[in-house]
Amino acid sequence: MPAGHFTSFHPPQRTLMGPGPSDVNPRILEALSRPTIGHLDPLFIGMMDELKSLLRYAFQTENEVTLPISAPGSAGMECCFANLVEPGDKVIVCINGVFGGRMKENVIRCGGQAIIVEDPWGRAVDPSKVEAALKANPDASILAFVHAETSTGALSDAQTLAKLAHDYDCLCIVDTVTSLAGVPLKVDEWQLDAVYSGTQKCLSCIPGLSPVTFNDRALAKVKTRKTMVQSWFLDLNLMLGYWEGEGKRAYHHTAPINPLYGLHEALCILHDEGLENSWERHRTQHNILKAGLEKMGLELSVPEAERLPQLNAIIIPEGINDAAFRSQLLKDYNLEIGAGLGASAGKLWRIGLMGYSANKGNVLYCLSAIEALLNK
Amino acid sequence: MPAGHFTSFHPPQRTLMGPGPSDVNPRILEALSRPTIGHLDPLFIGMMDELKSLLRYAFQTENEVTLPISAPGSAGMECCFANLVEPGDKVIVCINGVFGGRMKENVIRCGGQAIIVEDPWGRAVDPSKVEAALKANPDASILAFVHAETSTGALSDAQTLAKLAHDYDCLCIVDTVTSLAGVPLKVDEWQLDAVYSGTQKCLSCIPGLSPVTFNDRALAKVKTRKTMVQSWFLDLNLMLGYWEGEGKRAYHHTAPINPLYGLHEALCILHDEGLENSWERHRTQHNILKAGLEKMGLELSVPEAERLPQLNAIIIPEGINDAAFRSQLLKDYNLEIGAGLGASAGKLWRIGLMGYSANKGNVLYCLSAIEALLNK
Repeated sequence: MPAGHFTSFHPPQRTLMGPGPSDVNPRILEALSRPTIGHLDPLFIGMMDELKSLLRYAFQTENEVTLPISAPGSAGMECCFANLVEPGDKVIVCINGVFGGRMKENVIRCGGQAIIVEDPWGRAVDPSKVEAALKANPDASILAFVHAETSTGALSDAQTLAKLAHDYDCLCIVDTVTSLAGVPLKVDEWQLDAVYSGTQKCLSCIPGLSPVTFNDRALAKVKTRKTMVQSWFLDLNLMLGYWEGEGKRAYHHTAPINPLYGLHEALCILHDEGLENSWERHRTQHNILKAGLEKMGLELSVPEAERLPQLNAIIIPEGINDAAFRSQLLKDYNLEIGAGLGASAGKLWRIGLMGYSANKGNVLYCLSAIEALLNK
Repeated sequence: MPAGHFTSFHPPQRTLMGPGPSDVNPRILEALSRPTIGHLDPLFIGMMDELKSLLRYAFQTENEVTLPISAPGSAGMECCFANLVEPGDKVIVCINGVFGGRMKENVIRCGGQAIIVEDPWGRAVDPSKVEAALKANPDASILAFVHAETSTGALSDAQTLAKLAHDYDCLCIVDTVTSLAGVPLKVDEWQLDAVYSGTQKCLSCIPGLSPVTFNDRALAKVKTRKTMVQSWFLDLNLMLGYWEGEGKRAYHHTAPINPLYGLHEALCILHDEGLENSWERHRTQHNILKAGLEKMGLELSVPEAERLPQLNAIIIPEGINDAAFRSQLLKDYNLEIGAGLGASAGKLWRIGLMGYSANKGNVLYCLSAIEALLNK
């Protein structure tokens, strides 16, 4: 048993320019501290309805089933796979970074068979390889890919990949954790079937929630499953009784009230700014960052046409100790940038320009801090 | 796409005396709004270590593996079952309310076989029935029961049930969502093997996190599984790389930073008060509430010896329209009390006295409001 007195934790004011969480807008932090009300309170339910409308706007969809899962993006991913994959299902999984690999893990744990299409880390998914895999596996029922690979900073062509999936009679599951609100994402126009995202990237909300959206094609598959969804917590059929129930909501689990206030606020901020303006802002700040980095002789690792503006993977210059450099940035500048993940650990830095963090002040601060430390 | 301007959601100040969420201590609401830092930030990791020590205190355990799952209590439940139950495992499940039923659902979805021991709603689990089931099923490997049934207000004898489980060579999984910090709960002394709880009950934190603790016996079972844990998100083996990794934390998922500030604060408050004092306070406020209700002629439905102080199930007097009455309480008094769940819908009210809500001001306010409406 712990002895002595424990005191409140007072975090420092960091500048968050890693792969997420991004800097949280103070409006959102304030929203989190508003009085907790009940999860079945009519006023809370009204807020939820508004939140769902705002999520539809962010996803550019009219999908009825658009809601935040009460857990982080990894649970949103699992929600899509657990509901759509049945034992024996063949799923084509595109792997061009860490999160494609996690998709494969999910397929296997659902009893599915994963057919892997591999692309180099730091590159987009190659549609021609995907088409070959679809052709070679006519019994595949799902294509899964990551729109914006957080581990490498590469953007894939979700519209083209979704069209291929449908041409070969597959559904698609799309990871938009890092793309939502940062680059164009048009769920309805591109006909993305099951989509999950996160809150701590370009929405600049706190981590812990995972917005998802399912179209009718995806729902039809969920509703005609032969087997029970293996997760009770993530079973869409049960969840809908709470989120979609007209008039009377069936109790499923207790929603995380205050984080949902935060997400509502984040989506109001996005709606006020306008989605296109948000995309444009991410692009503009990326250009400023890129120019500054190149002036210092630093190189981005992803080819220009496949680059995410909101996640910039930079080749660590020779002779620099990765961990020591990032520690120093944190210590001297309260500035967090990201390490490389998996195969790129020690080789790449990842500088996030996500949501509220994508502003000129942050970009110039980050450039100055890196320059100062490199020249130390 | 939503037209017009969306505005911030400003919830009213309710008094929460339902089955949870309970009133959140203002210290915790303030903690939620502190600056977000990275989930791999050394200062965050230090906070997490302290949080785990404080959770051990709350659970009265020295279990190394004691941590908050990044999702609500339902996910904590699923974490225990998904890690401990393998396909074909026989699990004895005690059902004396809604949450025992949910345990059964979990067993089935994990491919296990559920042997049900039923007791009437509103009564404790009967150890003699449990012993009979253990005797009749020598191949059972787990006994699962709810310590404090939130749906009915009945307290079961966790120590006796755990001893029975061990006598018959079973592990026990125990739901302590509503008991933690509200009534005596001694994980080590009672030898509870796998235990989950929630944050929005007697800890008076916001909903959305689920503290769990596993002893060595439970971990041995997790580590010697023949099959993979079916959930990636809830796989304890993966989670431990993040929560328990010495020096270097393996990235699993992005922890919900700010809600964890809130839980840390809630546990500091509990530690300051002292666990025994918290139990005593719940008992004292219950006695005041009970006296007041009985004076009005209202009856508690659970026999005195099996009653939870923190959740009071009251028989709705004849001639009272349940839904209309509770709506009026909310409208006229900003006071939330709980409805009956499942079989007791329309028959019972559930008045919570949990955590910060268990204070004399709330009790007297609640009694006055109910009396005024009953006499209207």
